[in-house]
Amino acid sequence: MLRNGISALNIGLAGFADPIVAAGASVLNLDWRPPAGADPELGMLQARLEDDPDDAVGRQVAAANRDALDRLLGASPLLVDVRPAEEAIPGLTGRMLLHSGPPISWDRMCGPMRGAIIGAALFEGWAADAQAAEQLAERGEIAFDACHHRGAVGPMAGIVSPSMPVVVVENTASGNRAFATLNEGLGKVLRFGAYDDSVLERLRWFRDSLGPILARTLEANGPVDLKSITAQALQMGDEGHNRNVAATSLLVRSLAPTLVRTSTAADATAALDFLRGNDHFFLNLSMAACKASLDAAHGIPGSTVVTAMSRNGVEFGIRLSGTADEWFTAPVGVPDGLYFPGYGPEDANPDLGDSAITETCGIGGFAMAAAPAIVRFVGGSAADALNFTREMYRITLERNPTFALPPLGFAGTPTGIDARRVVESGVQPVINTGIAHKLPGVGQIGAGIARAPLSCFADALRGLAARLDVAEAA
Amino acid sequence: MLRNGISALNIGLAGFADPIVAAGASVLNLDWRPPAGADPELGMLQARLEDDPDDAVGRQVAAANRDALDRLLGASPLLVDVRPAEEAIPGLTGRMLLHSGPPISWDRMCGPMRGAIIGAALFEGWAADAQAAEQLAERGEIAFDACHHRGAVGPMAGIVSPSMPVVVVENTASGNRAFATLNEGLGKVLRFGAYDDSVLERLRWFRDSLGPILARTLEANGPVDLKSITAQALQMGDEGHNRNVAATSLLVRSLAPTLVRTSTAADATAALDFLRGNDHFFLNLSMAACKASLDAAHGIPGSTVVTAMSRNGVEFGIRLSGTADEWFTAPVGVPDGLYFPGYGPEDANPDLGDSAITETCGIGGFAMAAAPAIVRFVGGSAADALNFTREMYRITLERNPTFALPPLGFAGTPTGIDARRVVESGVQPVINTGIAHKLPGVGQIGAGIARAPLSCFADALRGLAARLDVAEAA
Repeated sequence: MLRNGISALNIGLAGFADPIVAAGASVLNLDWRPPAGADPELGMLQARLEDDPDDAVGRQVAAANRDALDRLLGASPLLVDVRPAEEAIPGLTGRMLLHSGPPISWDRMCGPMRGAIIGAALFEGWAADAQAAEQLAERGEIAFDACHHRGAVGPMAGIVSPSMPVVVVENTASGNRAFATLNEGLGKVLRFGAYDDSVLERLRWFRDSLGPILARTLEANGPVDLKSITAQALQMGDEGHNRNVAATSLLVRSLAPTLVRTSTAADATAALDFLRGNDHFFLNLSMAACKASLDAAHGIPGSTVVTAMSRNGVEFGIRLSGTADEWFTAPVGVPDGLYFPGYGPEDANPDLGDSAITETCGIGGFAMAAAPAIVRFVGGSAADALNFTREMYRITLERNPTFALPPLGFAGTPTGIDARRVVESGVQPVINTGIAHKLPGVGQIGAGIARAPLSCFADALRGLAARLDVAEAA
Repeated sequence: MLRNGISALNIGLAGFADPIVAAGASVLNLDWRPPAGADPELGMLQARLEDDPDDAVGRQVAAANRDALDRLLGASPLLVDVRPAEEAIPGLTGRMLLHSGPPISWDRMCGPMRGAIIGAALFEGWAADAQAAEQLAERGEIAFDACHHRGAVGPMAGIVSPSMPVVVVENTASGNRAFATLNEGLGKVLRFGAYDDSVLERLRWFRDSLGPILARTLEANGPVDLKSITAQALQMGDEGHNRNVAATSLLVRSLAPTLVRTSTAADATAALDFLRGNDHFFLNLSMAACKASLDAAHGIPGSTVVTAMSRNGVEFGIRLSGTADEWFTAPVGVPDGLYFPGYGPEDANPDLGDSAITETCGIGGFAMAAAPAIVRFVGGSAADALNFTREMYRITLERNPTFALPPLGFAGTPTGIDARRVVESGVQPVINTGIAHKLPGVGQIGAGIARAPLSCFADALRGLAARLDVAEAA
């Protein structure tokens, strides 16, 4: 008999244990799967990329990952400014838009992304109506690029147009910058593909009023330490992706006096009124802070650390630090979640947005232990929230000491996704996400949990191995 | 053999189990104590007061407690106004001060309370210096009363003077009102017995500026639902006593637009700047909301529900719903906690303040499961935080469905302390508290955990039994 009265260990299908239990014995079911999905070639490749002091490749990978982790954990993202995108983001000029996820062409884009592009074209004055906007895009007269290619991140459709104001986040540890639009709140919003007058009116107010108000506030206030706000918010029930009410409240309370001092009373009232009504305002800042932190860890030859996970509504894509600007993609599914009344999975668009940058940085779904209340929004029990975080420790290299999780005895958030560990364990990174309606203009219809497809990580390891000339060896 | 491989149960001293364990068997130590502290007379009295459909007293107690619980859980405390204490609090006129805890005379008061009284006398202009203020008090020329006698609650020394602004909280379910001063923040503050110029300057700014600003804001904004803010804050790491950063941030974010609209820019900037720097601002609102809720449940003949726990730095006192305005007191000890650098238990004043009204209402120490991060402030581990809440379920009658605790699977906070359960189990109500230096003027030197003395609850049951004419029967 094993300890604690257990008679047998089951490492196969859970059903294997049923007859043993029926016979009166107690069985412990181990969550065990064969390494690398029982693919011998992939398993050999992963083994070839393991840390090994006696092997040149093994030494390079270990050193590259240490370097990537140091840069990621040492990042110091500060909110320094709010500027029009065309001033802040290099190369974003003319009739050009950025979108979320890996690169994709108009003809393959999903409904919400097309809707957001129509809205952006109307907002920029490139087209007089939706039909004209669609025709512009179809004729190839709008240039598209991925946000990630230009230091930006966008939630859901992630559309950034030249005259939208963007937050400018500077990682002072590495000197790089990241950008994101201002969060529009819930309801009819561009990022979910809506483009009616209320959406365009809000974007104009962002451009003409809120953006400049925040820019003046930051100039007078000085930079805002986003890492510190996130650290506090993780002790206050936020996880930095789907729950941002604590961080938003801390930010607003911190900036309010300076905002009032540098604005007219009418402007200050309008800005504070908008911020009062938008519990998700900090999301875009959280994303930009994560992007600024991860970009610093990107581009280290040999590193198996994941530096981006993102979705364009058609494909899920990841980037590794060690594989430069290559994307490894797979078809993306519909999240598993809770729907608003009147909607269901048949209405849902496949998963969408750059917001998985938060999970890539070790917060969001990886920090669900900090935010047990979120299960009422994305589904599951409070215990599930703890278990998601515990599971993510299996595929990450470090615990971020700055981001302590009180319910786990102040353990740090699981940080630095290692593609080797994902491939070996079959544990898929977990992502908290909003669910968009598949038709443009409807908006958010739910929220839930998505899992990153395993094949992206296998392909990424193959790509890295090819760069390191170890493909033959496997 | 018992279940789970346990050979023996130990319900005595933990040491009883040592030889059994040494012999190789496994022992489960039950946390069991003889009922009512093994006092047969008290045990009989407690039994006589138990719910019993076949007994007139048992029926009365059961019905009274049901009524008290309904009023407590049904309370709807709204912040409606901020007014000078002499306008808001009936009878607070002339040279009179309110203090925390059960009633106490000047000659018996502790250092911090005396310091706060000196400060209040200076602030009101009753004395030109500290010595003159002390002489006034010694000569009996200042009238004192307990805050609790006039619908008020005050943290630490709890001094309320006629021209201090107080928040006015109305329980719209029962029509009663409660009051508390504005929270001064940390450092040198009146409530810890400090009375230097910076303390008096802040009190004057409260009276002349912040109080009127908040009054105008509330008039334009309408009432603020404090129960809703507390419910949200309990999902954000606050417990409503020693951690109020979430509630403070939510309140400020909610009121900021209206505050700006109804104030000059200079006034708004100063007010928002003060609120930015004071994470504890919501504490006094939390206390007044609890007081308004518990006062509605007070004064029901036969009820064993505790409606106040409070400390004046010399005595701990409680009131039961069923024993009208009687206090049951015991000497108060020094909290068990963490001290700021340079201080230790020998510097500490015994426990002080009306803030235990939060625990009486089921939050604060009773809701520590909501705020695992607080153990870094008051001591202990994150698991201890959960266990404090679990323990308090043993001595309370209900779980408050409005105040859900995410780490306990959204169970409600333990609410409605039943003096019978405290006496029977020996489980002492737990209180999160700040620790004051014993000398006037030094201020806060730590924070920790206090336990309510058991004898108060035994005496309260005796008092109730006498009122119900059941003392002989026991």
